[in-house]
Amino acid sequence: MIIITAQIEISAANPAQNFEKIRASVARAKEMGAQVVIFPELAVCGAFTADKLDEDDFVADCEYYNQQIADLADGSISIIFGSVASFKSVFCKEIILPTGRKAKCNAICIAQNGHLNYRIKTALSYDEQRHFALPQITGINFDAFTAEPVTIQGIKFGLTAGNSSLKLRRELSPMCEIIVNISLSPYYVGKKDEILQLVEDKALANNLPVIYCGGVGVENTGNNVYTFDGSSFVIDSQGDIVRQSPSFEEDLAKIEYNNGEIKAERGVTETPSQIAEIHQSIIYGIRIFMRQCGLQHVVIGASGGVDSTLAAALYAEAIGAENLLLVNMPTKYNSQTTIQIAQSLANNIGCWYASVPIGESLALTQRQIDGLISKNAKGDELELKLAPINIENIQARDRGSRVLAAISSAWNGVFTNNGNKTECTVGYATLYGDVSGFFGAIGDLWKHQVYALCRYINEKSGREIVPQKVLEIVPSAELSDNQNVDQNLGDPIIYPYHDRLFASWRDRDTPLALHTALKLYTEGNLAAELNCGKPSELTEEFIRQHFPTAKEFCADLENWYRKYKGLSVAKRIQAPPILRITPNPYGSEYRENAVGAYFTKAYLDLKAQVAG
Amino acid sequence: MIIITAQIEISAANPAQNFEKIRASVARAKEMGAQVVIFPELAVCGAFTADKLDEDDFVADCEYYNQQIADLADGSISIIFGSVASFKSVFCKEIILPTGRKAKCNAICIAQNGHLNYRIKTALSYDEQRHFALPQITGINFDAFTAEPVTIQGIKFGLTAGNSSLKLRRELSPMCEIIVNISLSPYYVGKKDEILQLVEDKALANNLPVIYCGGVGVENTGNNVYTFDGSSFVIDSQGDIVRQSPSFEEDLAKIEYNNGEIKAERGVTETPSQIAEIHQSIIYGIRIFMRQCGLQHVVIGASGGVDSTLAAALYAEAIGAENLLLVNMPTKYNSQTTIQIAQSLANNIGCWYASVPIGESLALTQRQIDGLISKNAKGDELELKLAPINIENIQARDRGSRVLAAISSAWNGVFTNNGNKTECTVGYATLYGDVSGFFGAIGDLWKHQVYALCRYINEKSGREIVPQKVLEIVPSAELSDNQNVDQNLGDPIIYPYHDRLFASWRDRDTPLALHTALKLYTEGNLAAELNCGKPSELTEEFIRQHFPTAKEFCADLENWYRKYKGLSVAKRIQAPPILRITPNPYGSEYRENAVGAYFTKAYLDLKAQVAG
Repeated sequence: MIIITAQIEISAANPAQNFEKIRASVARAKEMGAQVVIFPELAVCGAFTADKLDEDDFVADCEYYNQQIADLADGSISIIFGSVASFKSVFCKEIILPTGRKAKCNAICIAQNGHLNYRIKTALSYDEQRHFALPQITGINFDAFTAEPVTIQGIKFGLTAGNSSLKLRRELSPMCEIIVNISLSPYYVGKKDEILQLVEDKALANNLPVIYCGGVGVENTGNNVYTFDGSSFVIDSQGDIVRQSPSFEEDLAKIEYNNGEIKAERGVTETPSQIAEIHQSIIYGIRIFMRQCGLQHVVIGASGGVDSTLAAALYAEAIGAENLLLVNMPTKYNSQTTIQIAQSLANNIGCWYASVPIGESLALTQRQIDGLISKNAKGDELELKLAPINIENIQARDRGSRVLAAISSAWNGVFTNNGNKTECTVGYATLYGDVSGFFGAIGDLWKHQVYALCRYINEKSGREIVPQKVLEIVPSAELSDNQNVDQNLGDPIIYPYHDRLFASWRDRDTPLALHTALKLYTEGNLAAELNCGKPSELTEEFIRQHFPTAKEFCADLENWYRKYKGLSVAKRIQAPPILRITPNPYGSEYRENAVGAYFTKAYLDLKAQVAG
Repeated sequence: MIIITAQIEISAANPAQNFEKIRASVARAKEMGAQVVIFPELAVCGAFTADKLDEDDFVADCEYYNQQIADLADGSISIIFGSVASFKSVFCKEIILPTGRKAKCNAICIAQNGHLNYRIKTALSYDEQRHFALPQITGINFDAFTAEPVTIQGIKFGLTAGNSSLKLRRELSPMCEIIVNISLSPYYVGKKDEILQLVEDKALANNLPVIYCGGVGVENTGNNVYTFDGSSFVIDSQGDIVRQSPSFEEDLAKIEYNNGEIKAERGVTETPSQIAEIHQSIIYGIRIFMRQCGLQHVVIGASGGVDSTLAAALYAEAIGAENLLLVNMPTKYNSQTTIQIAQSLANNIGCWYASVPIGESLALTQRQIDGLISKNAKGDELELKLAPINIENIQARDRGSRVLAAISSAWNGVFTNNGNKTECTVGYATLYGDVSGFFGAIGDLWKHQVYALCRYINEKSGREIVPQKVLEIVPSAELSDNQNVDQNLGDPIIYPYHDRLFASWRDRDTPLALHTALKLYTEGNLAAELNCGKPSELTEEFIRQHFPTAKEFCADLENWYRKYKGLSVAKRIQAPPILRITPNPYGSEYRENAVGAYFTKAYLDLKAQVAG
């Protein structure tokens, strides 16, 4: 039997377009001699359809295309694909979920001879439970729709959907000969190894070959943009890889199955390094997200700092230098050093470059606001004064909301957000200033990852794209005389330590408690904990050097924690969408609200004891 | 038996503060002679704790205060209160949810003689299921922790939590004599009547008195701010109201229970009209949210249009005119009419007023950007030109991100977002321009509700606060010569129709499908459908007058639908938090993503048929 696994690109909430892609792939599979073609989970509607699934007519449209696909399954070929199906179509019964919604199914559709048959995904994530039904809740016996194999040309297929199904201990029917898992899951650092392990375990536990078919593409949840890497694998019953599809591209893999033996035409593609994979994901994410939004031109405020430099290098690669314009917006606080970095960068890339000084505009705003007198009906006067911090923020907003917004709209394009995860954590950025832009492609990278990616880009291209100088100077906002890269006056964030401290708050499923951090500090074990066993420049000595006493340690800890739970939340609420790289980005997956910092009794008690 | 129901103000994610409030209320209840005091659901931690519940130390802190409350329950008084409890505390067992989280309980805690006893809420909303466990999923028998009554001084109390529990058909144990439901649910239009009906039904179905104890306060989910109205009721076994607490304020109600008879000290407060209740909710929401954020001063960009006028009137009432500054920012496109409205408004209110013209800044930006030449390394030139729409948007951003942001920070305050739900639906606003500000207090009101609230404010105060003129002119952005209130040239939105069309997309749990709208148009039944049986200025003739043919109807429908699902999504992603008034606000409760408009086959087929 010839089986084609179709790792296709899927568009969220666009069944008409996905159907065309599936139709073309079925035709191609037929040409390749296939008896069975397998598409990813939710291939008709996409993974992140949000509340489109509340729209009955949208679900009906998906079901219309499900049937259109069934019509493609003539006697010569059978089609396995994922889609949404109404509960009624599958179970001839309507069910209302606890959310008040009509239950739908995340269905594995089996199209044979013009007819549809269903298997149902039951290992649902929390987000899926918003629209799809857990069997426990419906009271319906799902068994026939889950474990029972499907026979195609005499071969019994055991069908499951989603990565979480692979983890289920429940074995498939002993009658099945081959396991097929369709999936549509977004990329994150380390995902491919995890999937491979799951698929291998499944094959070995069942002593059966496993085909894992994923999809590629870019989808979003509003606050986050996700890349889908595919990660399609074919594993034989001994747990060995027979076929591995390349990441982030479409792939129709030809597989031959005969009496328990599984073979593939091409072999195994090499798995890239972690930093290479992050790079690949960002380039793919930018390229596809822009295409989906119908965007071509991108403007980047190039300060000569490391974040905007990295963003420029990435966009140039993703969309071409001819579609990229770097704008440097100096005031008297900007050094020749950073201005020259921005210019070199544009030269290295070959993109457009302009300088738009903002001194005149800053002066105008200062003139209009500093000393402004307001009056009330009684004739009282209120005079306003600008503080230094206000003047810093005016510069940031002038660059983002005045210059970049105007330039990008004049060019019929957009401008980028270049914030990283470190500054996002503590709100070290100005709302409507650097917190602006259509998309934050590096918003899920800690500062040390920003540097690592810059170095990788230079290594990979074998020449200086990222000017070496930017990797040497201190990171600085250059918004006042107190921030001077030439005098080594930079950001208040001590990156080697704070990067990892902040990661302990955000990157873990259970954040490191403040009282635990303080306890580890007093015991001299904090660096080890923050490094999570990975190599790092952070040592216990480094921490002690910066915070010799528990009192100083607590003051710093509380300062950043207050920012993390305070004003930075308000900034994140209005921040642009962030490309997800880690399992724990800011955005849709993290529920946070503006309630301010709360210090537990456990922390306050320990502090009173050791730093009182 | 004397029972006190304590409708207290609860702070989200601040157990230390909530404990102090509970301690003081217990002391007060003792003075009032109580044997039992009842607090709302989740009184220790608040309703919207977001992912704070992922923090083990936070949950431990809540449990510490649960025990502190238990210590207040000496022999003389028993305390019923809601809180989070770890699964381990209640069931002596750890459970991991499908989300990978440790299961917690939304617990009804019963404190007697220094000891804690638990009953568990099982009618969990979707959002609650993120952290709390549905019994179906745990495999544990919850029965003893749900239906079994609690005996206090020989009287058997049946305890439930949450509004959804009231809807459950499952009856409580026949052994109980009095039903107590503790709740902590946010306000929305029409909520109080719904709760009252549920409580009455519960009393009649069981032939028992019901005490419903809610909490007040303001909580947020990041993208939405919610007011909690309390809605506490005492209903006797005949279903009659014995006591109704006032909305949006704290209330300790003294109730006497003897042998099935229930009495209260004070009677029933009058239920306000719907518009009065909306007004009350907004005032309360502004006041408490600002207090929680530590804010005092508010700046409003007063254009002389109806939205900013309403916002100014509301803020003046909520925080006092002395804390409010209106800033008018004219260009040559602004009429004397609207400038005078803004001035009269400030006079009527008695707040601060300033005029900051933006013509000079607009000219500067035009000079810097229009004709700006960028170069690349090859020496090629790229020249930018500003289109009229770009110049409109520059004005909006100049007002928001330059002037208002600078003024509010100089005054150590914030500026408001004055967008309404109609313009939010289709993105008729500029990002970083009028889409900016710390909080959108009127963002869940349709344009016709904005007018209704303006009229209500004038009626209620018995004088002109909202200048009459603003209710008479056409709504207009005044960003070009084509938008002139004196020549009746206003917004492109036909409010009487589009307000209700957009509501059919957003205010219904299942949105009105485009093909249904088109079908109703062709049949002459669209106005009736859009009005939902409520009185409205919208008639079928009005629709026909504006769209005489199906082709024109479809063109308009598609134009706004494209905006609704297109660029407006990007604007909503970066929009300020919105105060929730309806059950369906934009923000956290609505999952939407940037995927563009999708037209179903059903719509395209019908359109081809009737408008081809």
